[in-house]
Order: sequence, then C-alpha cells, then structure tokens
Amino acid sequence: MKIVIAPDSFKGSLSAVEAARSIERGVSKGLPEAEIILKPMADGGEGTMDTLVAVTAGQKRRKWVTGPLGQKVEAEYGVLGDGETCVIEMASASGLSLIPKDQLDPLKATTYGTGELIKQALDDGYTSFILAVGGSATNDGGVGMLQALGLKILDAEGNQIFFGGAELRKVKSIDMSEFDKRIKTSQFLIASDVENPLIGPHGASHVFGPQKGATPEMVLELDACLAHWANEVERVIDVHLHDLPGSGAAGGIGGAFQAFFPSRMRRGIDVVIEYTGLQTALEGADLVITGEGQVDFQTASGKTPMGVAQAALLKNIPTVILAGSVGKGIDVLYQFGIVSVQSIINKPMELKEAMETAGELLEKAAEQEVRLFFYQRNKIELPTV
Amino acid sequence: MKIVIAPDSFKGSLSAVEAARSIERGVSKGLPEAEIILKPMADGGEGTMDTLVAVTAGQKRRKWVTGPLGQKVEAEYGVLGDGETCVIEMASASGLSLIPKDQLDPLKATTYGTGELIKQALDDGYTSFILAVGGSATNDGGVGMLQALGLKILDAEGNQIFFGGAELRKVKSIDMSEFDKRIKTSQFLIASDVENPLIGPHGASHVFGPQKGATPEMVLELDACLAHWANEVERVIDVHLHDLPGSGAAGGIGGAFQAFFPSRMRRGIDVVIEYTGLQTALEGADLVITGEGQVDFQTASGKTPMGVAQAALLKNIPTVILAGSVGKGIDVLYQFGIVSVQSIINKPMELKEAMETAGELLEKAAEQEVRLFFYQRNKIELPTV
Repeated sequence: MKIVIAPDSFKGSLSAVEAARSIERGVSKGLPEAEIILKPMADGGEGTMDTLVAVTAGQKRRKWVTGPLGQKVEAEYGVLGDGETCVIEMASASGLSLIPKDQLDPLKATTYGTGELIKQALDDGYTSFILAVGGSATNDGGVGMLQALGLKILDAEGNQIFFGGAELRKVKSIDMSEFDKRIKTSQFLIASDVENPLIGPHGASHVFGPQKGATPEMVLELDACLAHWANEVERVIDVHLHDLPGSGAAGGIGGAFQAFFPSRMRRGIDVVIEYTGLQTALEGADLVITGEGQVDFQTASGKTPMGVAQAALLKNIPTVILAGSVGKGIDVLYQFGIVSVQSIINKPMELKEAMETAGELLEKAAEQEVRLFFYQRNKIELPTV
Repeated sequence: MKIVIAPDSFKGSLSAVEAARSIERGVSKGLPEAEIILKPMADGGEGTMDTLVAVTAGQKRRKWVTGPLGQKVEAEYGVLGDGETCVIEMASASGLSLIPKDQLDPLKATTYGTGELIKQALDDGYTSFILAVGGSATNDGGVGMLQALGLKILDAEGNQIFFGGAELRKVKSIDMSEFDKRIKTSQFLIASDVENPLIGPHGASHVFGPQKGATPEMVLELDACLAHWANEVERVIDVHLHDLPGSGAAGGIGGAFQAFFPSRMRRGIDVVIEYTGLQTALEGADLVITGEGQVDFQTASGKTPMGVAQAALLKNIPTVILAGSVGKGIDVLYQFGIVSVQSIINKPMELKEAMETAGELLEKAAEQEVRLFFYQRNKIELPTV
C-alpha cells in the first residue's frame, strides 16, 4: 500500500508540515506496512512559502522591510531546494495578519515591502520567482511594490505619491527610467486563484476590499483610485488592466505584475503541486489523504484538497479529505475523485479545544480512515474467532 | 451489498429506532443499491423494551403503578410480536429517570411498581418474561417487587415492612403463603450485565448505590440492610444470596429473582440480539453499522456495539461504529471485529447542538462511512476524467 499524504495547513493550529506528520502517525498506526510519502501542500495563500521550502528542503532568508502600514516588519523569502527558485509570499511583507483587525486600512496599506523583498532577492542573484499573493492587506494596485523597485509614480508636482490605495488618485505620470532592469530578464510566476478584473463590481475593491477593512464608502473610493491608475497605465505603456482577468488579485498587484513584469499567473495549488513534485509522488499510490481546517462546497473553488484530488484523479487514485470542520454541500467534491470527507472532531468540543488538540485528532482520524478504506483489501484483517 | 444497521439509542437525542433510520438514510445516499436491514438494538438498559417491541412489531400496554418514591407513575410493559413474550423494563416503573436528581433516595426507593407491572402481565395471561433491569433507582433487594406479588415480608410485630432499602433491617419473617402461584409456572429471563454479588465491597450498595444518590454513610447502611435480608432469605428458603454473582443487579433485585423466581440471567445485549433475530439478519451481510452516544474502552464491557460486533464476527462480518463521542482506548475494540470507530460530530460544536442535530449528523457520517468502506469493491466509482 502506498499512501500519499498531502494536506494544507489547519489554520490557527497546524502548519501543512505538522498536519502531514500527524496524518502520517495515524496511518502508520492503522496500516503499519504502508509506504508513506509526505507532500504538505498550500494553495498560494499564507503558508505557501513555508510549505514549498519544507517540501523541497530549501531555505528561508529574513529581511526587514516596510510593513503594510509603514511599520518595519521582518519578512522572509524562500529559496527552493533547487537553489534557483525564489518564493515570495506577499503576506509575509504586506499581509493581513501583520495588522490588528481594528487597524486595517486599505486606503493606506502598501505593497512597498513586497517590492523590497523582490529587490533583495534580485540583489541576491535570483531570477526565477514564485509570487504567492494571498492574504494581502492592500488595495494599492501594486504601486508600492513598483516604487520599491524603482518605478517613479508621480503626482502633479512631480513627487512620488505616498503609500496606500487612496494615493492612486494623485497619479499624473509614470517614469520608467529607473525601474529595476533585472526584472525584464527574470521570470515571475504568480500563484493566484483570483480571476477578477482590476475595477468595477467584480474588481479588487468591491470583492476583496471589505475583508481588508474597507467600508462601503471606502470601496467606492478605492475602486475610483484603481480606475484612475489603470487609465494612467494604459496611457503610458498601453496595457489595458481595467477588465483584465486576474489583475484584481491581491488589491490589484495582479495587474501590476501583468503590466510591468514578465509574468504568468497560475492557480496557487497547481504551482504548489508542480514545485513539490506531487505528480511524481502519486505514481503507483493507492490512496491520497489531504485535508484542511475547513472544508465545504467552496473547497471546489481551487482549494488545496480539490487541487490534490484532481491531480490524483488524473492517475485514477482516490482521495480522502480530513477536515477540522465539514460544512455544507460537500457532495460537489465527489466529482473530483474525492471518496469521503471526514471531520477530525471526535466529540462535542469548542473550537479552542479543537485547535489545541488538532494534531492528536488528525492522527486518530487518519488511523480510522485507513482502517476503513483498506479493510476490503484485507490489509486490515478481522481477528479470528 | 447487504448492510445491517444495528445501533443502540443515542441517549438524550435519538432512540435506537430513530438512530437506525438516520443511518439508513445516509447509507442509501452513499450506496443507493445497498440492501439494508434495520435492527435497532439495546443493551438491557433503558430503551430495551421500546426496541424489542419496535423490532418485533409488538405492542405496549400502559398501567398506573407505584413509582420508586411511592408516587403514582404510568408505566408500560411490552408484548413482543410473537404475542407471547412480555418485556418488562424496570426503569419504566422504578427507574432513576422518574425522580429528579436532588430527590434520589435509595433508602426509600422501592421496586413495588415493577412487581405491579409483573402482576398485571400475569393477570393478562403472560407466562414468558424478559426483565430488563437497568436504570433502577432502588436498592431494596427487590423486596418491594416481591411484596407486590404477594410475599409477606414482616417485621417483629408481624406487619409488612414499608418501602425502601432502609426497611430491610426490620425483616423478621417471610411468609410465602400468598406469593403469586403463577410465578412458579412462568419463565423469567433477566437481561443484565451485572455480575456483582448482593453485598460487600463489590455488592449492589457499594458499587451502584452512589449513582442512585447514596452518600458513603448510606452505602454502609444499605449494605448492612441487604446483608440482613440475605440472612433472612437463607434462613427461610435456604438460598445463599450474599455472594451469588448477579444478585447485586439493580439494587439487589437480581438476588430476588434468583431466590424466588424460575429465572436465568443473560447479558442484556445477548437477549436483545436473540429476540430481535439479529443473527438471522446477519446472514450474508457485508457490513454491520452499529453505534451509540458514547464509545470508549468501556464499550468492550458488554455495551451494544461490542455485542453486535461479536455476533457479526461469528459470521466473519466486519462492524463499524458511529458514535456521538469517541473516548479513550478504542483500540481494545478491534479484537471484536470492529474495523473503525467514527464520531458523527463534523465540526467544533457544543453538546447541545450535537444532541439537537444528531439525526442529521448520523446520516451524514453513515454516508461517508459506506463511501469509504465500499470504495475498494468499486461500488463507489471514481468519476472518469
């Protein structure tokens, strides 16, 4: 029996690596002879860098950069085990989790730190980048990042505009002369599931602004600012971001990459699958166990368990999901080769207890899962009477 | 695929019949072509009569009797589908659940109502009895029941002693002359898992007294009273109950049956298995699904899921358990042919929510269970890519 263990993190309690190890312990107990391969996963959001670095046995580098509200934060970027590919997680420099909830302010939040991280990695000699853009606190169209990399985005007086989405309205000209030349000769793979346009009712501000602290009034202002920015970009470099799919990712940084970087976008989970070598690991597997903190019908929209299941189904391998919480509508997952969705919760308990004991719960659930799944192959035998 | 569904009740939320139907709905969803047989179970405790009556398509009869504290209660006895076997559940006439917790008093609680129920059934012409003795509030050695059936248990003045365990100390003589003659020509099957003796540190008062409201002082008094009663019984009819296994069941009523009735004791679940025809239903089954509100290492001590699994294992059929709460040490259950133990809880939630939605949770868990279990037989097919 070959079992591939490929969970996402269980947010707030277990990293993907920890989750994979917990599942491994349970599988080993339930099916001691199993051949087990651990492939912790991520979907392009927070934790993606950690997972990719861990799975490829890469390393992480720390650097102080400008946080989303201008404060200094110690961010990290990762270098994969190939020694060549650099992973930058936007959340590390410009993320929601760097700001207390009551201080979220997309009018002011900047992607400048993300630009500083990229610059540092360029300075360190890297030319191949994966950008995981989930979890940003920003709605600045990626302007802060562009400025950190030398682009001059100027107001009517010829001064650089300041941080934040509200500043975009002031843009009068864009000066490319000092934009970092190394970008043109590098590759940027944007790991993002967002296909939203930059502006309008399906754009960055309307769809993602509220979760970054925008009030309805702020949403309108942010959308107008991004529209002005898109007009300026079109005027200067003739790229029409307004309704370009994916340009609304991460507060519009998706558009900045598409306009100013040699970049392509891919679904986060697919990037992770490729760089972790999941496909190869799946060869000859009998079962894939994946998981995530919360699983419901939305899991079908590019979340890790579904991406993993799709990859497994291509090789006709069944997938089971272990989740902290199983919500509504999981039937839609069956079409992706998911055999079952089980909660790890084993009795009535509060969220706090579940989070604190998630590792143990996951281990126990995995043990039961393989006992049940492999019984029919007589790998789990009934005792003789 | 043939699946036998044989759960106990989920105490406080679902009767065994309701639980079986919930599981049935889930199995039908997960495996629409399955042949399903419902055999709701019980372990001899509360709910045993309901289950036996439901499964055999019998009927219930109501009668006002004397409750454990002398109040009138409307109790029931059941007649199985064979029209011959009468099921009397002690809890219905003399049960813990008939008394508010703060009024429990084993010094005063009586089994008189249980005797009245038996008398009624004898009057109705029945001669074959199953006595489910779990859940009693009493510690009177079965003396109340014996009095209701005509036995005179007299004090020094030649008066009948009154209700309750504390009265037993007054017994001076026993007069068999008016004891119901029909008892001798009837059969009494006592469904009980208790093998404790009547008295001593492992006796009824010490082991079960506290859960019936006895303080440590009361335990000592109750034990002394039962000892005096045992001495009198031995003196009069030469039966030595003191350390007789099973005589400590249900506050000593086990001893009363052994001394004064043509009776035999069997483990509750085994009685239920026999009278529900579970063995026949198991013929050719591929899987048995059982369940109970709480499952842990103690389940191995004669609880329903283990009894069901043992019966299934005799025919080499695997059993899975669905439980509201999965506690410690469930590994001990594997030796009884139990393949897996799954909780029905599907996210962190309070006990109240779990109880209120138990039916739905059970249905969902059963669906996942059969999807997982039967995948290997290709009864659940992966979608084609």
